[in-house]
Amino acid sequence: MSGHHATPPGTPQVTRDLAHWIVGLKGADIPDAVRREGLRTFVNWLGCAVGGARHETVDAALRAVMPFSGPRAATLLGRPERLDALKAALVNGISSHVLDYDDTHLKTIIHPAGPVASALLALAETRPMSGEDFLTALIVGVEVECRIGNAVYPHHYDRGWHITGTAGVFGAAAAVGKAIGLSRQQMQWALGIAASQSAGLREMFGTMTKSFHPGKSAENGLLAALLAEAGFDSSERAIEAPRGFACVISDKQDRDEMPGDLGTRWEAELNSYKPFACGIVIHPAIDGCQQIRAEIGDRVTQIDRVHLTTHPLVLELTGKRTPRTGLEGKFSVFHSAAFALLRGDGSPTAFTDEVVTLPEIVALRDRIDATADPACHEASVTIDVTFRDGTTLRKHVHRAIGSHDVPLTDAQIDAKFRDQAALVIGDAAARALLALAWTTPGLPDVAQVARASVAQAGSAP
Amino acid sequence: MSGHHATPPGTPQVTRDLAHWIVGLKGADIPDAVRREGLRTFVNWLGCAVGGARHETVDAALRAVMPFSGPRAATLLGRPERLDALKAALVNGISSHVLDYDDTHLKTIIHPAGPVASALLALAETRPMSGEDFLTALIVGVEVECRIGNAVYPHHYDRGWHITGTAGVFGAAAAVGKAIGLSRQQMQWALGIAASQSAGLREMFGTMTKSFHPGKSAENGLLAALLAEAGFDSSERAIEAPRGFACVISDKQDRDEMPGDLGTRWEAELNSYKPFACGIVIHPAIDGCQQIRAEIGDRVTQIDRVHLTTHPLVLELTGKRTPRTGLEGKFSVFHSAAFALLRGDGSPTAFTDEVVTLPEIVALRDRIDATADPACHEASVTIDVTFRDGTTLRKHVHRAIGSHDVPLTDAQIDAKFRDQAALVIGDAAARALLALAWTTPGLPDVAQVARASVAQAGSAP
Repeated sequence: MSGHHATPPGTPQVTRDLAHWIVGLKGADIPDAVRREGLRTFVNWLGCAVGGARHETVDAALRAVMPFSGPRAATLLGRPERLDALKAALVNGISSHVLDYDDTHLKTIIHPAGPVASALLALAETRPMSGEDFLTALIVGVEVECRIGNAVYPHHYDRGWHITGTAGVFGAAAAVGKAIGLSRQQMQWALGIAASQSAGLREMFGTMTKSFHPGKSAENGLLAALLAEAGFDSSERAIEAPRGFACVISDKQDRDEMPGDLGTRWEAELNSYKPFACGIVIHPAIDGCQQIRAEIGDRVTQIDRVHLTTHPLVLELTGKRTPRTGLEGKFSVFHSAAFALLRGDGSPTAFTDEVVTLPEIVALRDRIDATADPACHEASVTIDVTFRDGTTLRKHVHRAIGSHDVPLTDAQIDAKFRDQAALVIGDAAARALLALAWTTPGLPDVAQVARASVAQAGSAP
Repeated sequence: MSGHHATPPGTPQVTRDLAHWIVGLKGADIPDAVRREGLRTFVNWLGCAVGGARHETVDAALRAVMPFSGPRAATLLGRPERLDALKAALVNGISSHVLDYDDTHLKTIIHPAGPVASALLALAETRPMSGEDFLTALIVGVEVECRIGNAVYPHHYDRGWHITGTAGVFGAAAAVGKAIGLSRQQMQWALGIAASQSAGLREMFGTMTKSFHPGKSAENGLLAALLAEAGFDSSERAIEAPRGFACVISDKQDRDEMPGDLGTRWEAELNSYKPFACGIVIHPAIDGCQQIRAEIGDRVTQIDRVHLTTHPLVLELTGKRTPRTGLEGKFSVFHSAAFALLRGDGSPTAFTDEVVTLPEIVALRDRIDATADPACHEASVTIDVTFRDGTTLRKHVHRAIGSHDVPLTDAQIDAKFRDQAALVIGDAAARALLALAWTTPGLPDVAQVARASVAQAGSAP
């Protein structure tokens, strides 16, 4: 692929090749390590969807769409209400992302599971599939969205697109298309219908509409696959055509990302899981501030000022000085650092509407500043603390927890899952759901997992 | 507005001002001529939606979405099935555009009514509104989408966006938001949620996914307004922000289009209606070929070759040499001209799967060529015919029928409505529906029009 409006000779048939790969892939073709990462992706996503289920963003979305729901075949994870699969994909996609606690493909900052798993699990309640087939489709969807993301990142993201929305819709269409057995031609159409729904702007960060993006791309990708199945046709070269996705929606494209080495290199294996409930770029600062707090204890109250030296993206994405809501707090490295220093916490409770305006937090927040250093690695930070008595302390984080080099262990994923899910469905239900989720590869019917996410009578927190 | 990532000092609060205008406008503020054009827009759109209702594209969409429909409160125009309002907005938007016979805002090639009227009428069946309020909301929606379209055209369209989809979602959100009485803040949110769903690629032209664009933008705009009503928040400067709609989705923007002279200049008054069921840019060629046929009668069979001198956009948009389907035929000026010469017809029957491969049509089609002339007006064409005996004939069309200078009369809109609607719901029902539609301004409940679009038992064609 290259510039606008002219397909150079030899341009690969990206959409066709991608569709053929999706259709032809067998579960056994996926290496064990990739399948294992797919399971970790699913477990982490499920905990986030349950953890976010009571957020006011989800309540608002539900008020709007509930009157239009079809037969209520699909579970809202962590909630008693049910919706049709298309609407459940939307709402579960919102709840899984609303805490900004879900998974991240670090190369592209895509949050892969939201669009893909939300679509696939909602559909699985009316189109039964085994846990193994579910995971195969999930991995295929994640791979497709991350490859498409790689091909247009960073130009596409820099322009202002929220890549989880724009690439996610392809992942959802690919995953659902795989699960329902689309033909090669239908899969090309599904990718085409997905391309024409690719949307989501970074301007929405800090508002409810950010988590709307993975939700809507889940719903739209599911719809794309269902339309293609029903014979609704589309362009068969939607990704690479001169007026197709890649050229229209990005200023540059990397043709090598698709689809040459599909099946040998796996982006789905590179997924990562957040230890903190906010944008991945603030994680080094929170990690460092937590370490400082652990080292100095009550002396945090003696801090006069703090200076952060960060990767430039930290300030570009999370430079809000005075967040007014919890959602905005996730886009303030200043709030996040202050809260980590004073409370030692980066979980969802660090990002509520209440805490972002607490005088104690605000007072420290306003004495934190930051400098962007292009030489700083994305997973690093240097924190310089000056105390009221004039003494100083420097903390350098080489690679933050949750980064590619320091991935969350299964045990850490478990703890994160339990902590957030227990607040919504109670500890016993959270533990039972977690145990069940890890057995997904052996389940005859994956919908069991969705149904187990709802608090039983008497077990609510 | 200007380039990326920097809001220059003095940048107007476009989204806020637009939202305030929408909320504050009263029906009486709309000049009579604009209201009259709004009614013509509605009548023309209704005929197209009924006329397209039996297209295989609509059948396929319906097969996919029917199982997910909520309470079936909304009519599918011209069909016996019913769907919830969101899904009905989708399907009616598809049927109203699938014949490429609907309205056109000539400055931007937006088809304004599809996204707006499809959303509004579907909702009106559960949220009753008078015909007068309906028309006010319709005009507001058309105005908003055309202003947003003006601001980014032609750069946005040239890049490859199908502007009916990308601008249409704003029109649908504005119209529904007006009709349901959103507050100013909610209206800003609705425009923001719309912005993050703005999508649709020109690559899809000639496939079913083209008419999916107005349908999906109708559904998405309706959803945006309903979400905002439920308290789902969004950016309050979604259009003008550095990473908002205009900068992200277009390479250039014209800030004067929004919203300085809203309410004094009316784009909604500039809507036009097609005499032929295909892209507006081919209309001069069809008009000219029909005139030639009327002049020479049976001598059309003696034509050796035809040369068209056209506006460059004609070949860019409709240069398909060998259309394989009726939908592709709409994007072939060669097929359209051949059919007009041999059959004198540019109605939906000129663009069926059957006729595009008829040997007689194909034989003449393949002897037609065309040259783009930048000096040629968009509504003009010069046609040079060479007969087998070596004689020649030249026809110059100064301004084609249906263009700004030669608008369709009410009587022509009536004839177009009856001709296409009668094929679907029978002549008597088509005539009754047409008569009712013209009385919209006086109707206490506009949903009456939707319900009257369905063939009565015994009255089907």
